[in-house]
Amino acid sequence: MTARSPRNPAPAPAPASSSRRRGRPPRGESADTRDRILAAAREEFSERGYDKTSVRGIAKTAGVDSALVHHYFGTKEQVFAAAVEVAFGPALNAPEAVAEGPLDGVGERLARFVLGVWENPVTRAPLLAILRSAVNNETAAGVFRRLVASQLLRRVAEQLDAPDRELRVELAAAQLVGCAMMRYVIKLEPLASADLEQIVARVAPVVQGHLTGP
Amino acid sequence: MTARSPRNPAPAPAPASSSRRRGRPPRGESADTRDRILAAAREEFSERGYDKTSVRGIAKTAGVDSALVHHYFGTKEQVFAAAVEVAFGPALNAPEAVAEGPLDGVGERLARFVLGVWENPVTRAPLLAILRSAVNNETAAGVFRRLVASQLLRRVAEQLDAPDRELRVELAAAQLVGCAMMRYVIKLEPLASADLEQIVARVAPVVQGHLTGP
Repeated sequence: MTARSPRNPAPAPAPASSSRRRGRPPRGESADTRDRILAAAREEFSERGYDKTSVRGIAKTAGVDSALVHHYFGTKEQVFAAAVEVAFGPALNAPEAVAEGPLDGVGERLARFVLGVWENPVTRAPLLAILRSAVNNETAAGVFRRLVASQLLRRVAEQLDAPDRELRVELAAAQLVGCAMMRYVIKLEPLASADLEQIVARVAPVVQGHLTGP
Repeated sequence: MTARSPRNPAPAPAPASSSRRRGRPPRGESADTRDRILAAAREEFSERGYDKTSVRGIAKTAGVDSALVHHYFGTKEQVFAAAVEVAFGPALNAPEAVAEGPLDGVGERLARFVLGVWENPVTRAPLLAILRSAVNNETAAGVFRRLVASQLLRRVAEQLDAPDRELRVELAAAQLVGCAMMRYVIKLEPLASADLEQIVARVAPVVQGHLTGP
């Protein structure tokens, strides 16, 4: 909503704390504090997983009081959602660029974009944290569904003109997520060491087929 | 090696305990004990993940002494490998059936086989346990790599006649694993509620294309 929207927490998913006020964009020291809390949250969720991470642990890593974490973000689920949203910040804004241009190149643009984010260790770390948490915890899976599905995949689907366009986008995403998992998480060979261009060459037509094929 | 080989533990991955004797096929009470330990292991790994699961916890759930778990299986990694091997028992024997018959139907047979295993809650539970552990822990990922990659995927690859056949099989598996993850773990809609036949119809040609396409 504001110029700093990627830093704002996700829309409150738990009604219990929806009365908190944290819509105002942070400035100066509080922006630093928020960033530090989010960085600590990413680290904690990544290393410990969703279940073992606590708001107190995040606060400790960030060097702040737990109350401040609650003040800025609310519940653990909401801290997670905010961390996911920051991690997906570039991704959530990318679909427009990915979906721009001729539809017959969208498969390659999407494949390059998703694998590119995974290829970079800096952007891979938060994705890995999210994936790990989502696979292990129903609440985290819900955050993943809400943010990634509704904000990322739906925006790609909107560009398509087919009755089953949401299913098409999800199966295309399944190919890319599965590929990222085998290559970067499970590290299956020869996929893990294969040249990125070789993978794009094989995967882009599949993504394209899912999105615009018969 | 024996008629009961699916019940035998995986080849010892840790040299430390390779001196243990546990090659003899169990009979009577000890077979029951082994099965009980493996069932407890699956339950523990599934609920707690690899890191939080201990040999002591498995022993407690199975109602036996920790020493007995060590006696039958060795280290935690070896218990995990044995549990994975039992869980993948049908899958590890299936590729022959999947790869049998004309190559131009292998995509559909493989898609039906993998999604069928995930569709059944009984066979899904151990797969989920393995996936969760492999995503979260490097040792568990190693077991996944060794068993699934070398025993399952390689056997499909052997049927193909292409220089990059291993990469092809892994990208086909990536589509199926990604699909299973989105449908059964993340539960992304509309994929989670879609008719299985609709998914097979879309995914089988992709798997086929990876395996035998240009």
